[in-house]
Amino acid sequence: MTPTEEPDGPWKMPLAEAMTTQRAIRRLLADPVDDDLVLELLRLATRAPSAENHQNWDFIVVRDPAVKHQLARLNRQAWSVAKRIARRKVRSDWRMEGVIDAIQWQADHFEETPVVIVACLRGMRLSRLVRVGAASYYGSIFPAVQNLLLAARAAGLGATLTTMPLWSTGLARRTLGLPADVTPCAVIPIGWPRGHHGPTTRRPVEEVVHLDRYGERAFLPRHHH
Amino acid sequence: MTPTEEPDGPWKMPLAEAMTTQRAIRRLLADPVDDDLVLELLRLATRAPSAENHQNWDFIVVRDPAVKHQLARLNRQAWSVAKRIARRKVRSDWRMEGVIDAIQWQADHFEETPVVIVACLRGMRLSRLVRVGAASYYGSIFPAVQNLLLAARAAGLGATLTTMPLWSTGLARRTLGLPADVTPCAVIPIGWPRGHHGPTTRRPVEEVVHLDRYGERAFLPRHHH
Repeated sequence: MTPTEEPDGPWKMPLAEAMTTQRAIRRLLADPVDDDLVLELLRLATRAPSAENHQNWDFIVVRDPAVKHQLARLNRQAWSVAKRIARRKVRSDWRMEGVIDAIQWQADHFEETPVVIVACLRGMRLSRLVRVGAASYYGSIFPAVQNLLLAARAAGLGATLTTMPLWSTGLARRTLGLPADVTPCAVIPIGWPRGHHGPTTRRPVEEVVHLDRYGERAFLPRHHH
Repeated sequence: MTPTEEPDGPWKMPLAEAMTTQRAIRRLLADPVDDDLVLELLRLATRAPSAENHQNWDFIVVRDPAVKHQLARLNRQAWSVAKRIARRKVRSDWRMEGVIDAIQWQADHFEETPVVIVACLRGMRLSRLVRVGAASYYGSIFPAVQNLLLAARAAGLGATLTTMPLWSTGLARRTLGLPADVTPCAVIPIGWPRGHHGPTTRRPVEEVVHLDRYGERAFLPRHHH
């Protein structure tokens, strides 16, 4: 029996509970996260679908302080540019302020993250079977990343999905020793949370659902009657 | 209490069970799938993270036979090219044969699919906050798509992720009446399955996990001792 099959393990969390309480947790404790737990997260990540079931992903588990420091530098470089834009947005959306504080906290403490996972895609950018390019390419890694985030949530771990340390694919490749045909796609810093998981809020789904053709808001009336 | 909070609803399926039994199901019954169930799937889909929590997705729920027929045509066009490549691959990987049969079945019966969901991204291709381009762009839709697929699995629905009907973004936009700033990213045909959900197999995770730098197979020995 593998840990994921243990009926009393964290993985028994109901699907809907994991999904409705998943949130970006950027403030993490420096307490260690066991390799066995990390491997379980990755085992569930790799159950996700990929184009033609190629499973052409690679996951770099970063624990070496030197590698973390390089990723932290890349992250801060991207954030120093992005935060100027983000600050301008605070004027129109006050909720951004809390998000900016959390991203800043993560940038300042990136080196203390117990484990950072970098999800990568191996091989050609274009799938040979399904010639739709970027969508089918990234569609082969982000379902796995989402499984990883949901599994982390079920385990009580804090995690977030960011691409900031990857602003330069070349520098990220050098940092992680990636061959030219392996592309880093997502960075997931993981640790025990300082904050809380808790229900998230979203716009009513009816606002983003259309029937048959864009603009056909067929689902609105029945829910407003 | 919303349906997702019902303790005895399909959404109580343990997270790990949903993940380890999720598989592409292409052979679907023509039996109807209720709007309420579809909306619940989409409600869980939209709990996924998106860059800056923009939630800049749109979901087109396709039920109109005319729109389904157009998507079916686009799908068959892509498949007629892709299947020649796929058939060549059968020689090196016999498991592809069953997959090809299933894709062919779906192409032949696409019009009978009870409901087809097209997941789209609204707005600029580049996030303004995180200037990493394609990865952060597609990273804002495929986590939602994966939530949708996991929720469908928990509900006992068959579903699969494909990008074939999107081989021409222009033709897909015209079919769905999408504005120029809305990009279709994934197509998910959904229905009650003819086949079975069941445990999937994957390569051992240790084969795709590296420690700190690519090629450092630190996790292999401990599991082989």
